[in-house]
Order: sequence, then C-alpha cells, then structure tokens
Amino acid sequence: METFTIKWKKTTEESLYEQLYNHIKTEIVSGRLRFGTRLPSKKKLIQNLNISQTTVETAYEQLLAEGYIESVPRKGYFVSAKEEFLHRNLPQTDVTLKVSPEKTQHYDYDFYPGLIDTSMFPFKQWRSLYRETICDENQDLLLLGRSIGEFSLREEIRKYLYQSRGVICSAEQIIVGAGIEHLLPQLVSLLGEKAVYGIENPGYPLTKHVLSSQKRKSVFVEVDSEGADVRNIENSVISVMYVTPSHQFPLGSIMSANRRAILLNWAYKRNDRYIIEDDYDSEFRYYGRTIPSLHSLGEGKKVIYLSTFSKSLMPSLRIGYMVLPKQLMKRYQREFSHYASCVPRIDQSVLAKFMRKGSFDKHLNRMRTVYRKKLETVVKALEPYEDEISISGEKAGLHILLTFPEEKNENRLIKAAQKAQIRVCGLNNFFHKGTDEKFAGIVLGFAGMNEEQLSTGLEKLLKIWFKREKKRV
Amino acid sequence: METFTIKWKKTTEESLYEQLYNHIKTEIVSGRLRFGTRLPSKKKLIQNLNISQTTVETAYEQLLAEGYIESVPRKGYFVSAKEEFLHRNLPQTDVTLKVSPEKTQHYDYDFYPGLIDTSMFPFKQWRSLYRETICDENQDLLLLGRSIGEFSLREEIRKYLYQSRGVICSAEQIIVGAGIEHLLPQLVSLLGEKAVYGIENPGYPLTKHVLSSQKRKSVFVEVDSEGADVRNIENSVISVMYVTPSHQFPLGSIMSANRRAILLNWAYKRNDRYIIEDDYDSEFRYYGRTIPSLHSLGEGKKVIYLSTFSKSLMPSLRIGYMVLPKQLMKRYQREFSHYASCVPRIDQSVLAKFMRKGSFDKHLNRMRTVYRKKLETVVKALEPYEDEISISGEKAGLHILLTFPEEKNENRLIKAAQKAQIRVCGLNNFFHKGTDEKFAGIVLGFAGMNEEQLSTGLEKLLKIWFKREKKRV
Repeated sequence: METFTIKWKKTTEESLYEQLYNHIKTEIVSGRLRFGTRLPSKKKLIQNLNISQTTVETAYEQLLAEGYIESVPRKGYFVSAKEEFLHRNLPQTDVTLKVSPEKTQHYDYDFYPGLIDTSMFPFKQWRSLYRETICDENQDLLLLGRSIGEFSLREEIRKYLYQSRGVICSAEQIIVGAGIEHLLPQLVSLLGEKAVYGIENPGYPLTKHVLSSQKRKSVFVEVDSEGADVRNIENSVISVMYVTPSHQFPLGSIMSANRRAILLNWAYKRNDRYIIEDDYDSEFRYYGRTIPSLHSLGEGKKVIYLSTFSKSLMPSLRIGYMVLPKQLMKRYQREFSHYASCVPRIDQSVLAKFMRKGSFDKHLNRMRTVYRKKLETVVKALEPYEDEISISGEKAGLHILLTFPEEKNENRLIKAAQKAQIRVCGLNNFFHKGTDEKFAGIVLGFAGMNEEQLSTGLEKLLKIWFKREKKRV
Repeated sequence: METFTIKWKKTTEESLYEQLYNHIKTEIVSGRLRFGTRLPSKKKLIQNLNISQTTVETAYEQLLAEGYIESVPRKGYFVSAKEEFLHRNLPQTDVTLKVSPEKTQHYDYDFYPGLIDTSMFPFKQWRSLYRETICDENQDLLLLGRSIGEFSLREEIRKYLYQSRGVICSAEQIIVGAGIEHLLPQLVSLLGEKAVYGIENPGYPLTKHVLSSQKRKSVFVEVDSEGADVRNIENSVISVMYVTPSHQFPLGSIMSANRRAILLNWAYKRNDRYIIEDDYDSEFRYYGRTIPSLHSLGEGKKVIYLSTFSKSLMPSLRIGYMVLPKQLMKRYQREFSHYASCVPRIDQSVLAKFMRKGSFDKHLNRMRTVYRKKLETVVKALEPYEDEISISGEKAGLHILLTFPEEKNENRLIKAAQKAQIRVCGLNNFFHKGTDEKFAGIVLGFAGMNEEQLSTGLEKLLKIWFKREKKRV
C-alpha cells in the first residue's frame, strides 16, 4: 500500500499521532488492512499527510508495541495481526446484576450483635497519632513490612496479653492480620488437611464457612451452661477444638474449670491436637475479675489464641491477631512468611502508639463503664418480664441471650420487631445446618445505642412481643 | 470444711477478694481441697477472717463463674472441679523459635523489584485527608462496611479504569481487597475446583503458591517477546489463563495483538473459560500511549481484571481490586458477601478522596516523570556494555530485565553483587519449579533509589561483574 488519507479531527482531545494510530488500528481490526500488507513508509506518510516525523514514528512504535504491525529490516512495516483473530461473535447473553443496596436498611432501634458504641471513640487522639505517623521521616512505612506485622504492634499486644489475659508468649509468636476472617484461613492451611475440627453449636457461622470452603472436616459439639461439652472429646475424631471459653458465642456461658481441664488434658495427649481459643470479647467483663484464658492455663503449647480489636476499638479497623505455639510458628515461618501482611503499616503503627501511650487501656476502662451501664439498663427493662424471658450471658460482652419458655416461634418475634423498625437477631442464625435441637432465642446486642434509645427501644419491643405493658417492679 | 486461715499479703496489687479467690483456687488445683468438699459458709468466713461480705461474695462468685465450685440451694458451696483433671504432665519438649531479624538486611544499593520511590509521596496531603476523615461526623466508619468495599472508592476506581484503561464496568463489579495476595484466593475459590489454570513461566511465584495451597491444577505457559505463548491453548486442558499482558512479569514483554485475539476467542468459546488479567504496573508506561487492557478488548465478559495501588501509591497500603464479569459477580454475591472486607474503611475513604480530588492522577504524572528519568539513567549506564548485557522491558514499569549472552551462571552475578552490599534479584526466582529451560538474567528494580545512587550503584555493579571499567560512549 502506497499511502492513505485520513480525516483529521479538529480536537484537542486526541493528538495527531493518536489519530493516526487509531486510524491504522481500525483499518487492521476491521479487515480492510490485511495480514502481510506493507504499510506506507514513514517518509511517504510525512509527505502525503503533511505531518511531522515524530507523529509518524510515535504512531508506528505504538502499533509495533501492541503487535499490530512488524518491522522487517530494509523492507518496511507490515501488518502482522491476523484479522480472523480480531473478529469475534459474542455468543453470550448479558447478565443483569442485581445491585444490592449501598446502605443497609434503616432501623429505628438496632439490637444487632456486632455493633459497638462509636460515640466515645477518641477521634481527636487517633487523628493526631495519624498526623504524627504520616510524615517524611516515616517513608519506610510505605514499603512492605513483615508478613506477621510490625514489631512495635506485636510487642504492645504481647504486653497487653500478658497483663490482661495471662498469655505468655514472645512477640515473634504473634501474627497480626486483617481480622479473624483473614487469620482463620491461614491457620486452617497451617494445621494441615488431616485435621478434624470440633466447632461449637450454636457458634460463629464464619468458622464453619471457612472450614467448608477449605474442605475441612468438622464435628459439632453441643454447648450448655458450662460451655462446649467436651466431656466425650477423647472418643471423638476431633483433632482441633475451636472454642469461645470466656464468653461462649452466642449463648454467653463460661467454660467450667472441669471442662477446661478435660480439654487441655486431651490436647496434651497427642502432638497433632490443638485448641483454638477465640477470645473475641474478653475485654468486657463487668463483674469480678476477667476469666483466665485457656492459653494461660495450658502454658501456651497446645492453645492457639485468637483475638481482635473489633469489639474493643472498632470493627472497621480490621486488625486481629493470633498467638501460635512455637512448633506451629515454625511451620508458619516456612510456609507463609513470604506473604505480605494484609494490614496497612501506617494503621499498625498508629495502633501501637495508641497502646504504648496507655490510651488503649484508658479507652477500655471507659468503655467498660459505658457498656456496663447499658447492660444494667437492659436487664432492668427486662425485669418485669422474668416469667416470659430468661436472660443468660449477662455478665460480660456486648450481647445477652434471651430465651422464651413459652414461645417456640423465633421468627414471629423477629418479624414483629421488624414491622416496628426494630432489628433483633435470632438465635437460630447460629445453629449450624443439619442440627436438630434448636430453641427459640434472641441474641440481643446492646452496644450500638445510647441508654435512652435502649430503654425506649426495649419498651416498644416488649410491648409488641407481649401485647401489653408491664409496670416496672 | 468448717473454715480455713489465709495469709493476707500486704499489697495493693491484689485486693482482698482476689487473694481469697486465689487461695481457694490454688487449694483446689493442688488437690488439697477435693471434689465434693463443702466450703465454709459465707457467714463463717466473714466472722473468722474478719473480712467484709462483699469480699467473700465477689470471691465465691468468681469461683462459681469459672466452675471451680458450685452452689447447692440450702446446702452451701461445694468444690466441683475434679483435681485429676487439673494435673497434667507436660510431655512435650520445648521448641526454640529462631527469631528472624526484625529488620531486613541492609544494602548500600538495592535493585530489588517491588521497591518504589517513597520520597515523592504527598505526605502532607495524605495526612490532611486523614484528619478530615477521622472525625465525630464519620462515626459510622468505625462499623463494618460492605464486603466488596466502600462505594465511594469503588466509584473512583471505576472512573479511573474507564479513563486510563478503557475498562467498562459498574462500581458493583469491583471488589476492593487487601492486595492481590488476598483477592486471588477468593477468586480461586469462586472459580471452582474444576478450573485448570494456565500460568506464565517465568511469572509471579505467588500465583503458583496460591493455586497449590488451594489444591488447584495448573499448567505452565512459556513466555517470549510477544507475551505468554497461547497459540496452542485450544488444545490444552486450561480453563482459566492468568496473564500480565501489559508488561509481562518478569520478562517485560507486551502481549501481541494476535495473541490477545487468540486468547479472547478461546475464552469466548466456552462458558467456564476465563482470563485473569493482572495489570500490576500499567500506570507506568513512559513512551507512547498506555497499552490497552485485555478487558477493554474483550468487553469484560471473559476477563477478570486485577490491579493494585502497590506500585502507584505504596505497597504497604494494602489496597488492590478486581473487576469481575457479571456472571462471576453473581456467584460472589451468593458466596462471599457475608465476609467482612479486609481493608480498613478509613483508609478506603481517604484513598477515595485522594482520587476524587485529582491528586492520584497528579501523583501518577509526577511519578511517571521521576521513574522515566531513573530508567534513562539505568539505560545510559548500561550502554557501554551492550555486548555483554541485553535489556528488555525497558519502556514501562519499575524494573527491566538484563540478560547475558556470555554468562550462564546467574548465581555468580548475584553473589558478586552481594559481597559489595548490592542487592539484585535473579530471574530464576521466577521460573516455576520443575521447569527446565532457564536462562541467566537479572530482574533489576530501579524505583527505590535516587538517580545518584542509581548511577553509582550501577557503576559499581558493572565493574564487579565485568572486572573492568568501560568508558561512557
């Protein structure tokens, strides 16, 4: 081909070279310029189109880079793209994507477990720690850190765990990750394919979900007022037991000393046996001392300790951690240390400073008072209904469990609440699929609303549920 | 048991109730207070030990809560923990954990790929965006957001992808995650167990690692100057092809128009076929236009587009994203939407604002100039060695590939550099295990050092490698 003409667009959006490039590319893709066709020489184009050498060269280089044309020394430029490849029928029909709402539904009163009180967060201090951290001197924080997280944060977590949970470990055994959702899959890989998991029923749906998605076997272990019933664990196939001993989720029971001992003895009998202690809300115990961690009882050799800042600080920060027994940590170092940590280093540094300054302890103390008052408000509002509603798990955490001796239909309770713009969460959400023994219950989160909202919301809720108002005793 | 004595410690560290609690617990655990023993009544203790009612009650309640004792109505308190459970032999020997260094080894000159220039980062602006974001009015940002990330950020990514990469999608098809390390495992689960992956060889070790750890089958696809050689893909078992078409990692080649067409045609032929386009550093192309994305050529129905802010902003921010075809997004909504997003919402909001204000574009433009100059410095320093070293991939990205017609021993090159405190990265790191055809090469990252360091470092490096100095041409 000797040359061609081109209709130049008088626009500033597309430069001349882009117009030339697009023109030739379209000719090739449409099949008008076929495979093997020689393109006009650069010289010809410059003369005929009255454009600069740079324009032609840039356009040809781009076409070369993308492989539409090739250059044959001393012969010129040739179309190298085969147009039969460039046409395609698009046989598939389009899929319409249902857009889920960007905002969750609004409720006048929200008793969902998992909410926290956001009004008391020390925004000012948090902000100033960011200001202090994001600066030229900390340029290194832009680069990747270690897979297990920043040393400064792991060291603060170590101190905190030692003081408040009796957990004895080195900072080198702590892995910081983006919440339990992220740490658990790593842990499950680490424990190998042969592990068979015992999981509490009712319990966290997420645990089961992670295990299923990684094709791990699991066995349900029933829960009562003494926590997970592990009395027969020795006769089971379980090799890793997942428990929430300080405040069972969702029933709220504390694992008894006997069961803790049974569990630890069981774990010590075989090398491949482990206990996963999920200590998700142990910070909040309102009466008496905190319940000692299983980790502290078992000298940390058989207990994998998991926790998070979701309840104690904010769920959206996405920082959790696990403490691995040394033998597992060795395996982690071999298999996972080349992964990058999922937690932004700046956030890790800010949190480490927040802890080092004692602000985390201060915040926890403040929140303990706030939540205890809320809990008292809830318990008081429920008092007149003691014949209709039993309360459990009311000494710790951010939720309590309501059960109903005379009500079998949990759904009725939830729907009645929903109609009045009140969100409550049914206990049956936490029974794993395929289990029979269920009973009606409401897992009532009390952290998200202020005390006034709590009393008014509860008053409404109880009136709806029981169709009558009770006098305060 | 009628009563007991207790040696009170005169300390402010432990309250009286804690001392009482600890005393009784120790007696139980040591076996001196046996299962079934009746404890002294509260009254007795108050009289005999001369302590308050509250002290006794708090201690007993704690022991009750932890299950060491039980209360039998009208009979009193009894030891309920069986001491045989509470003794344990600890049979396992201790493991010593080798502490890996908290700081990576220091090098005078670091040519490692994956580093970025941190000196030009707009710290001040980033800081002020945090200040603006972390405030009382944004309390909701403390709570969990949607699993796919904040709408504000996904919308900014959508606009950016449309303008700069020709990717047409809705914000609802974008999933924000903590980098490719985090997104890839999700994607692999989503694509099901039957998928057989084609991966580039040489290529990202991480891709192979994720596939292996999820027990997925993969097939190596060779790479040459036209990118991954997919000409025979129709006859392979591959159902999902993972490519880096804009700037192959690590060879640097651009996938040719023919191969792109072959790949797209192949994908369109069957419903379960997909292409994963990893567009990790497409922001940095220094000559001509950016290479159009495969996604833009394929109308987005068969291409899963993956990218990250690691190169363009900072690796430690841990924000990446993927664009899913609608049919896959439907599957994601079913299976993954109950997971919490791994990326802190505050960070997401800050980044969204940074993009909305045009600062991201501005930063990219600035960095393009900075990196282009660095690249020119590198290319210039290498010019006198054109007989000994071939360069490829030198039009884009943050690394180039050096190959050596006369040098077969890559390790010699790396070790010689190391001795002189210079870090370089060997090409063979990126050939997957079990592949034969390897050749010596160095993947030279040029982003981390300033121009002066680059020239001095390179000068030293070349002198060491070739035992002589060359004059600049």
